[in-house]
Parts: sequence; C-alpha cells; structure tokens
Amino acid sequence: MALVRVIGAGLAGAAVAHLLHRAGRAVEVVEGDPTWGGQLRTASAAGVLYEPAGAHIFHTADTEVWELVTSLVPMLPYRHVVRTEAFDRVLSWPPQLAELRELPGWAGIERELAARPAVPRADNFESWCVGLMGETLYHEFIEGYTRKQWGEDPKNLTAAWAPKRIELRDDGYTDLFRDPHQGWPDGGYPRLVDGLLRGVPVVMGQRITIDDWDDVCAGADAVVITCALDEFFAEHLGRLPWRGVRLVNHYLPGVDHVLPCGVLNTPSPLLAHTRAIETKWMSGQTGPGTVVSYEYPGAPARHYPIDDVAGANRALARRYLDELHALPGPPRYVAGRLATYAYIDMDQVIRQAMNITRRVLDQLTTG
Amino acid sequence: MALVRVIGAGLAGAAVAHLLHRAGRAVEVVEGDPTWGGQLRTASAAGVLYEPAGAHIFHTADTEVWELVTSLVPMLPYRHVVRTEAFDRVLSWPPQLAELRELPGWAGIERELAARPAVPRADNFESWCVGLMGETLYHEFIEGYTRKQWGEDPKNLTAAWAPKRIELRDDGYTDLFRDPHQGWPDGGYPRLVDGLLRGVPVVMGQRITIDDWDDVCAGADAVVITCALDEFFAEHLGRLPWRGVRLVNHYLPGVDHVLPCGVLNTPSPLLAHTRAIETKWMSGQTGPGTVVSYEYPGAPARHYPIDDVAGANRALARRYLDELHALPGPPRYVAGRLATYAYIDMDQVIRQAMNITRRVLDQLTTG
Repeated sequence: MALVRVIGAGLAGAAVAHLLHRAGRAVEVVEGDPTWGGQLRTASAAGVLYEPAGAHIFHTADTEVWELVTSLVPMLPYRHVVRTEAFDRVLSWPPQLAELRELPGWAGIERELAARPAVPRADNFESWCVGLMGETLYHEFIEGYTRKQWGEDPKNLTAAWAPKRIELRDDGYTDLFRDPHQGWPDGGYPRLVDGLLRGVPVVMGQRITIDDWDDVCAGADAVVITCALDEFFAEHLGRLPWRGVRLVNHYLPGVDHVLPCGVLNTPSPLLAHTRAIETKWMSGQTGPGTVVSYEYPGAPARHYPIDDVAGANRALARRYLDELHALPGPPRYVAGRLATYAYIDMDQVIRQAMNITRRVLDQLTTG
Repeated sequence: MALVRVIGAGLAGAAVAHLLHRAGRAVEVVEGDPTWGGQLRTASAAGVLYEPAGAHIFHTADTEVWELVTSLVPMLPYRHVVRTEAFDRVLSWPPQLAELRELPGWAGIERELAARPAVPRADNFESWCVGLMGETLYHEFIEGYTRKQWGEDPKNLTAAWAPKRIELRDDGYTDLFRDPHQGWPDGGYPRLVDGLLRGVPVVMGQRITIDDWDDVCAGADAVVITCALDEFFAEHLGRLPWRGVRLVNHYLPGVDHVLPCGVLNTPSPLLAHTRAIETKWMSGQTGPGTVVSYEYPGAPARHYPIDDVAGANRALARRYLDELHALPGPPRYVAGRLATYAYIDMDQVIRQAMNITRRVLDQLTTG
C-alpha cells in the first residue's frame, strides 16, 4: 500500500495527514517537538486557558475550510475585537473616525486628512500609512507599534502588506476581521490538532534533517515537508531570518477580566511589549481567575518571515526549496508557514493542505 | 503585609507557594517557561496521556506529603512495575532469583553468586554491582544500561547511589518501590501543579537572572529560589553539568497496549535508548490508541546532576550557593532539584518545601 510520510505535525502537517488518512491512504508523521501542534498551543493555568506561543484567531471566508474545522471541533462564536492605547485613551483598532472626532486634537487631524494624496505612496510602510491617515494618526496608532514589532524604522519596511493590515474606518464596524466564519475552538487548539491526527501514527520528539533523508524516503511514495528548510539543511546556505515574539503570561487569581477585549495594542515606545492578550475573551470562560499575556517582540522564534525590500530572504528560501527538489527520492511537497517561509493564516494553511493532498492523491493514482 | 517571592514554578516552587499561601501569606511566583510545572508535564495525543519530559511515579513513605498530594488531586492506585530485556527474555527488574533459576545459564550464574564477597566493594559502581550479583548478571542487566545512561564507563562512576538503586531479589516482590503510598495523578501531573498554584499570582515566561535581583527583592520579605543557580549567575563560574534524557514519543492509534508494563528497560548496547515508557499503564486509560516513549540519554536537559567521584561538581554548586547568600537583600532560601543540584524524588521535593516554608514562616513571625 502506498505510504506518505509527513515531516512536521503543526497545523500544515496535521491537516495533510488528516486528509490523506481520510482518503484511505497510509500516512506516517514525524514531528521534532515532543508534542504535536506546532505553534497551536493552548495551556491551562489552574483551568484558565491561554496561548503560551501566541494568540490564534480562526477567521475565514473559505467555507470548505470552515466545514472541515467545525467537523473536528466545536467552534465558539468568538468575533475578534482589538482595541489600542492612543491619545491617552483606549480606542478602536482599526481607528474609527467617529471616535477620532471626539478627540481634543481633532481639528489638526482633520486638516491632515484633508491634505492626503488620492492614493498613499507605496515607497515604504511609513509613506503608505501617512498617506492613508496623516502624520498624527500614524504616529499615535502605528509608528511605535511597528518599530517595536519589527525592530526597524518603518521607512525600511515594505508597504506590500500594509493595505491588508492598515485601515482607517468610518463605518462603526469594530470586529478586526470581516470574514463570515470566525471562532475559537471550544477547549483550545489542541482539540483541533487532535481531531486532525486522531488515527494517524505520529512520532514526536524526532527532529528531521537532511541526514535523515534516506530514512524519510524509505518505503515512502511521497513526502510532505512542513519544517523550516534552512534548519532541515543545517543552514548551510545561511539562516532564514524570522521575527519572533515572546509571551509573558500573568496568572491572576480572583480577577475576572483585565482587558476590555481579547487584544489591547500598546504602541507606546515607552513600553517594550506591543500588545496584551486575554484568552478568556476567546475561550468564553467565566468566573474568577484570568491570564493576561504580554507580547514582546524580538524573540528567537519563527513567527514572522521578514520580507526585506530587496527580496533577499525570499530568494534564499527559494534556493533551499530548489535543493529540496534536487534531492533523490520520491516526489516531495512543501506546506505551511515554516517550509514556505510565508506568513499565512490558519485557513490558508488548511487550504494549502487541501491543494497538496489533491496533488499527492493524483500522483498516487496516476503515478 | 509581608510578601514572599518565589523563583520557579516547578514542583518545588509551586509547593512552597502553596504552603505559604495556605498559611495566609502573600506570595508571588515568577517562572521562566511560558507554562508552569517544570518537568512535571503530561501531554495528550488525541486523548492519550503521556509524559513528554520523562516519566514520574509518585511514591513515598511520608504520610504528611501523601496527604498534601491527595488533598489536591485524586491519585490513581498505580504501583510501578519495571521489566527489562535480558538473556533474550523479558525479566523482572530488579532481577528475581526465581526467574534466573529458569535460565539455561543458571549453573554459571549460581557459581558466580557463590563466589561473591560478603560485602560488595564500593570502589566504583561496577565493583559494587559485580560484588552484589556477579559478572554475568551485571553484564546482562546493568552494564549496558549504565554506560548508555551516563555516557561513562561504570568503573568511573561512584558507588554511592548503587545500594539505593540496585537490588537482587529473592522475595517475588515485583513492584519497583516498597513505599506504602504510590500513585499517579488522575488526569496527569498538571492537575497536581494546578492544585498547588490555584490562588497564587504567577508570571510565566520571565526568566530571572542576577540582573533582575533588585526587582526580585523589591518589596519582598523573603525570596525562595528554585531555578538552576549556574544559569541564574550567567554561568560565570562555569556550567554545572547535568545528564539529560530525550523522549521520542510514538502515538500508535488503534493499539491498546504495547509494553507488558509501564517501563521496559533496554540494556542492550546495540540500541541507543535505555528504556520505553507506556504512560497508559500509569494513567489507567483504556481503549484503542497508546503512546510509547523511548528514552534516549545524552540530551541537553537538567535531569540528573552528575556526582563525579572527586566531588568537583558539588563543590561548584556550593560556590554558586555561597554567591547567592552573599547578595544583599532579604533572607533567601533554595529548594528543588535545580537549585540544590541534587537528584531528589518528588516526595523529597515536597518535604523540602514543607521545611523551607516553616523556616520562612518562622522568619516572618519573629523577624
């Protein structure tokens, strides 16, 4: 019987394994960490759920993806709301003009807005944001956050992803996402990963590198790789840079809620953290006891690939991918944030897994 | 109100925090990892419990400790049984003479046993073991395991801890431990740590070093330290050596049990792992699906302090302790395996926490 070996049991590897298993194929998964789930961790402090590796909000317009997820775990009807410290107040994120009009400095902001160009200049991240909302709003809402998040002057960052992330709203819509399907898994993300991997043999705590390639290929008709390719190749072409965050999690017994919503941004350059997260808003838990997680950027973790303006990092990722495809052995596929060196949301990861599963099944049927 | 700050939320720190909190004292705990519990981890793979950081069996003759534990979490009545591969069979550990008499080579073993000295020579670990059970049994049961476990010739290891660990039995008693109280927490060890820390404010993901000492002392009337002191002091006197293990955890869906008992030792020098662990025996879980964890020695983790014959490591630990006591600030106490550089069982850790809590309370009352 045809066998597919999957490297990595984060969301990408788990989703591919699940779909192949469901299609009746033999699958084996090997994971480097001693537990599965990748970044999708939900911990419990005396019963209070929180996310020690960072917050995850599931949101999608992809109905097929949503149906897969909800078939595996009940999704709580959480809709993500973010607020931000700005102008010594707590305001909506993205900024809402109705709230800004109440500010003492509104007259100046209004003048800046009136002077905006028709289209923001996409020279860099800062020029785009200033073009969208003027100097004052950019400075209050975005500049400090961005400097902390990326450890870079925003002038040196690409504007490529700004249109997807930065808005100035005048519609009173205060959810962060506009996707029709949004939620948080009842009991936490491990239930989603458990649902994906139930029935699939998985080895955990076994990190795979190029030295293991013969073993990976042995008896396999296809290999799906979801680990970081630079690490897989022992970084022999150099290290792919990532921006990571570190969470400092405060368990506060006796307190019900601390934040006004799930995430509160802190753009101030005077504080090192970028935001605070209170998972109780997502998990729907009630009663005394909460955990507030403060997010500090600049940790050695693979969270955000760094899209430099020159594209050097992406070119390096491409070279590692070429090396992978040049190896002998059965057909191989890559999926997930780590292996593709791309910041993609959970629904995109699952969609990618669906596409790759289709390609693997085609290969196994026709090959 | 007097405040005690506790560094580390493993078993030692959690137990001290619990006892002080129960005594009505204000306690704050700071933990370096993003979750609490230290090595006391229980993970779940699709509902099957296992211990990704190594197996823990609670056993004690200390009734007060047992009463504390059972007041916090129901303990399943698990009694620990270990078997070992030897003579191409699966035999009891410790070895049972009744089983050995059935071996084809018994006559030779019997001659070696008859030639034993009255008291094993304690020159080193090997001389002690050979003195206890003869060359053949030592070679089959112990030599390979010990070489793998410590990465050392057993002749270079101290005999100091051999009498506590190595037995040759003729009584048919096949439990590893003879303690009256034995068990495994229903649902896993996090329930025990949750029980200890419920109600105590804890910051997780904040590693403390000497650079933070002023913050640690600020407002504190006593400080209890349970982290590794060499790491706390940035290893400026050198690194305290530890022997660590790595677990490779195999999730096997559809299989009920794989091992004949909770732990199966593999002394063979031909295999790299020292033992296999099937937590389902401890957790009492039934039905299809299991996790078997293979334990590989030589990982960079602080599991076993290395008791060199010359005592150099213990002397270094003592120097770090002296430095800690020479720092300015409120009275400080150390507890737990990491801070004391001592291999102590869970019940000993809790007893230590009880003793230190008494000292802290005395200090706060009289000081």
